[in-house]
Amino acid sequence: MQRIAYFGPSGTFTEMALAGLETAGAFDGTVERVTAASQPAALELVRAGDVDGAVVPIESSIEGSIPATLDSLAMSARLQIVAEIDLDVSFSIVAKSGTALTDVRTICAYPVAAAQVRLWLERELPDVEVRYAASNAAAAEDVANGLADAAVSTALAGERLGLESLASGVVDYEGARTRFVHVTKPRRAPAVTGSDRTSIVLELPNEPGSLFGAFAEFATRGIDLTRIESRPTRTGIGTYRFYLDCIGHIDDAAVGEALKALHRMAASVRFLGSWPAANEFGTAPPSDAPDSQWLAELREGRADL
Amino acid sequence: MQRIAYFGPSGTFTEMALAGLETAGAFDGTVERVTAASQPAALELVRAGDVDGAVVPIESSIEGSIPATLDSLAMSARLQIVAEIDLDVSFSIVAKSGTALTDVRTICAYPVAAAQVRLWLERELPDVEVRYAASNAAAAEDVANGLADAAVSTALAGERLGLESLASGVVDYEGARTRFVHVTKPRRAPAVTGSDRTSIVLELPNEPGSLFGAFAEFATRGIDLTRIESRPTRTGIGTYRFYLDCIGHIDDAAVGEALKALHRMAASVRFLGSWPAANEFGTAPPSDAPDSQWLAELREGRADL
Amino acid sequence: MQRIAYFGPSGTFTEMALAGLETAGAFDGTVERVTAASQPAALELVRAGDVDGAVVPIESSIEGSIPATLDSLAMSARLQIVAEIDLDVSFSIVAKSGTALTDVRTICAYPVAAAQVRLWLERELPDVEVRYAASNAAAAEDVANGLADAAVSTALAGERLGLESLASGVVDYEGARTRFVHVTKPRRAPAVTGSDRTSIVLELPNEPGSLFGAFAEFATRGIDLTRIESRPTRTGIGTYRFYLDCIGHIDDAAVGEALKALHRMAASVRFLGSWPAANEFGTAPPSDAPDSQWLAELREGRADL
Amino acid sequence: MQRIAYFGPSGTFTEMALAGLETAGAFDGTVERVTAASQPAALELVRAGDVDGAVVPIESSIEGSIPATLDSLAMSARLQIVAEIDLDVSFSIVAKSGTALTDVRTICAYPVAAAQVRLWLERELPDVEVRYAASNAAAAEDVANGLADAAVSTALAGERLGLESLASGVVDYEGARTRFVHVTKPRRAPAVTGSDRTSIVLELPNEPGSLFGAFAEFATRGIDLTRIESRPTRTGIGTYRFYLDCIGHIDDAAVGEALKALHRMAASVRFLGSWPAANEFGTAPPSDAPDSQWLAELREGRADL
Repeated sequence: MQRIAYFGPSGTFTEMALAGLETAGAFDGTVERVTAASQPAALELVRAGDVDGAVVPIESSIEGSIPATLDSLAMSARLQIVAEIDLDVSFSIVAKSGTALTDVRTICAYPVAAAQVRLWLERELPDVEVRYAASNAAAAEDVANGLADAAVSTALAGERLGLESLASGVVDYEGARTRFVHVTKPRRAPAVTGSDRTSIVLELPNEPGSLFGAFAEFATRGIDLTRIESRPTRTGIGTYRFYLDCIGHIDDAAVGEALKALHRMAASVRFLGSWPAANEFGTAPPSDAPDSQWLAELREGRADL
Repeated sequence: MQRIAYFGPSGTFTEMALAGLETAGAFDGTVERVTAASQPAALELVRAGDVDGAVVPIESSIEGSIPATLDSLAMSARLQIVAEIDLDVSFSIVAKSGTALTDVRTICAYPVAAAQVRLWLERELPDVEVRYAASNAAAAEDVANGLADAAVSTALAGERLGLESLASGVVDYEGARTRFVHVTKPRRAPAVTGSDRTSIVLELPNEPGSLFGAFAEFATRGIDLTRIESRPTRTGIGTYRFYLDCIGHIDDAAVGEALKALHRMAASVRFLGSWPAANEFGTAPPSDAPDSQWLAELREGRADL
Repeated sequence: MQRIAYFGPSGTFTEMALAGLETAGAFDGTVERVTAASQPAALELVRAGDVDGAVVPIESSIEGSIPATLDSLAMSARLQIVAEIDLDVSFSIVAKSGTALTDVRTICAYPVAAAQVRLWLERELPDVEVRYAASNAAAAEDVANGLADAAVSTALAGERLGLESLASGVVDYEGARTRFVHVTKPRRAPAVTGSDRTSIVLELPNEPGSLFGAFAEFATRGIDLTRIESRPTRTGIGTYRFYLDCIGHIDDAAVGEALKALHRMAASVRFLGSWPAANEFGTAPPSDAPDSQWLAELREGRADL
Repeated sequence: MQRIAYFGPSGTFTEMALAGLETAGAFDGTVERVTAASQPAALELVRAGDVDGAVVPIESSIEGSIPATLDSLAMSARLQIVAEIDLDVSFSIVAKSGTALTDVRTICAYPVAAAQVRLWLERELPDVEVRYAASNAAAAEDVANGLADAAVSTALAGERLGLESLASGVVDYEGARTRFVHVTKPRRAPAVTGSDRTSIVLELPNEPGSLFGAFAEFATRGIDLTRIESRPTRTGIGTYRFYLDCIGHIDDAAVGEALKALHRMAASVRFLGSWPAANEFGTAPPSDAPDSQWLAELREGRADL
């Protein structure tokens, strides 16, 4: 049995991601879900040993990187990402059994969610009064408690509370997806699949050359960077912090060599994990095997090379 | 008189940034403030010619880049950043005149704000009931309307509504700052000051080499990149989109040459402006003047070079 | 009338190159040929103002670079290459009128030449006795003076001395060519032709990064390096000296920018000239014009860019 | 017993280099010296299996690289350099016993040597008549045969023929040195000493990017290139050939990785050997050991990294 933390209460998109990972067999044995007060708090439970892992959002196609998650992963004791899942982010309109969409006069929503369904509400419920809730799941709870006729929430939250779904797939812009990751204490990375993702955090001296040098370590080895984000750390020592994702696995020769090279040049390199990618975007690093064999034979003095 | 749009209602941090730019003399003549329903909506008013400019947040030291602003600047008709201002992001606790902090039983807050002052509330108002509002300014309006005893809001919102400030500088983590920019239709950039920032959006072919090549254009010219962010555009053509800030001005020789080089190699280069930097972080590009003179004399055939 | 120095005596390959340049119209007006005791001595006559120019070999497809020429160009007062000519290097067998090849029992040759026609001699004159001369031209003089039956020499030397050619195009390996250059005091380079060559000498700090940086200045601007040669200068200060040729002209924007960038980073940059290339090997640098226009319009604030 | 070929006849500088390597213990057991007609011919004897190795000059501080040696190493079956020795190149004036310098009226010299001692002859023997010989060793033989009073030759040649040395260390410019290498069929390289040299020949596509990329493989790994020479091969396929020397050994991790990377990108990579350097010029590549250990522990999941 594994205890896995997530940003609750029950019914958030994060819990849906956790459920998706469970279905995909990401955890050994059964799972006990443990709610946490925030994304960083979920990660702190892992560090403290109170849980075996946590599921947190890391990147949204609409909002970009999730800073609270990234900063928590970059600082304090190192943790490691071991799996990912991409989730369509679309909302359900949930209400008590027997409510029709045309009956809805008041609707609860987490303000971030309300902003993402504004056009839908104007079109479908032009006269509705919007009331604000603390989370997507809390909006559904407010409906269960009789504080509003319906809620902009998740399918899971509605189901948990015995509510009915009046509409699903509700979103103003198509194709919004969020990536969630399963985080544990450091351990051996999952086996190479050939379609893997590796994530690191770099701190570099505040010099143009060091930046260029770091990218060169990837480019010259044919490694495809799929995400780059830099922010000055604005500490007294004048360093940048870089969040980099690449295609490949720490056990791939090219990635291993790039990490070694960065370890030599950077102020710090934090490995955030290698894990199977949820989609096929990007190019895997070239196999090192033919060149390694060539080098080994050359070192042995083979003549016909 | 200039009409300047901002994400309202009156009393948001964005309006405080607009006021700060006004004080700093960023606008010619008097300013009429025009509220917009969202950050992208404020920029659309500029594109439509309904206003002369807009003030929008672009980057937060806590949250990172503001995707809604960046994506709006990257797409549709080009706009140009002409000024910036950095604002300390800390909250005021506002209430009707005569309320003491110890009297507060219910407090309104925008959920994002509530999360940023959670520790403060636990310490100072351990038993308070939190109610949610649609924005920082709306929280203050709720107090003015008698819906709660106090609000987590901005100093400006409280002042507008005749509320008193029970506490200011309220924030769990010190040093949070947000950068706001003044955006207009394309025009000649403000004059070089020697401490300028330039921002561009690049689209590059999805190849490791092109990424490395783009950074080389900056590194080899001694240009200091202060922000890098890449996201796959996930369009059919497999390109990345890069948001880059560097120290320097489009009228600096080094920056001009780098832009020309990028224009030659990139799928697209969008110039988002050059403007005076609000702080001194980073290194200005080297002056080109001595080398230009040397080259000109060499071309003329001067012997002692 | 121009006085042009060359490594004599009359009849050397260098004089043939000088004659070829004369035929090609490389000199204004008539030419007075002035012999010098060595390649460096010919260049010293230019520096001293005793002659208007010199013709010297700079590179051989068999022997590679001619160090005596390169080192003389790299040191002392700067000179400038203004033209080049490629010459097939093959020998003539010359003898007094009435001599048949089958009559030849003794043959004079410059030892370097003897080595290049060894197989030919073994095949055509298996029993001949080889006697050594001080230069290709001197070998012909020895024949004119009755010291041998024939000489391995140049067509020009034979002609000057009234000797007959028993065989021409004599060489063991096909395709040997030598490049000769016309060198003057520094002056404005010949006009851009679109197929030009530029040559420089760099001194760099003895650091791997500086080397890489110098090449980056060319690579990132799409400039094609056609010759690279580095040798430690082995002076106390630990620098390398680099001899670089590229395709392009100092008046090309890309080449001018690369030179400026090298001037900023290198310990020293010596410009050896830009001149029309004798052949079409390599790729001309990209035209800067479209990008320059784009940049100029962007700087002016044009909206639709 | 080893059979070692060299460019003869007996008494050349190359034989002196062979003797120096013998003294330094470069060969196992006793050595039989085998003369060859040229530098390439000596290498062909190795390829044919007629000898165990060859000693050939590869680079001169005055003349630069020795093209005949390099081209022979670059083409035909691969050979491998296993040792080097640097030799001061200065001449001896040799004559029959009883001859004083003031008696010398005629002097034999290889023309290349005559050019290098011209100033010395003008100063010490202003009226001497110079006669030309086929090699430095042949000049001494001419004296032994009574064809001249003295010879510009090597100490070794004089000694062999029982001649006396009238002057030694004769050279116009101080510090001339030539590097000679011991070449064998491919075999395991000599053990790493920490001060080693590695030499390779690269063929690259005729594109600016490939050149830059090749240098990047060295620069990004902190490997110090000590010699670079490029020449177009001028074959139909439009490739360059690069001769590169670096500090380091094929068994060094950094050098091995650079070779693998070049093997992946280049049209061809020919390894010419790794061997102990005769001097200390340049910087050894960084040790890989700490980074390799870090990577290995990271892969195992160690937490405190």
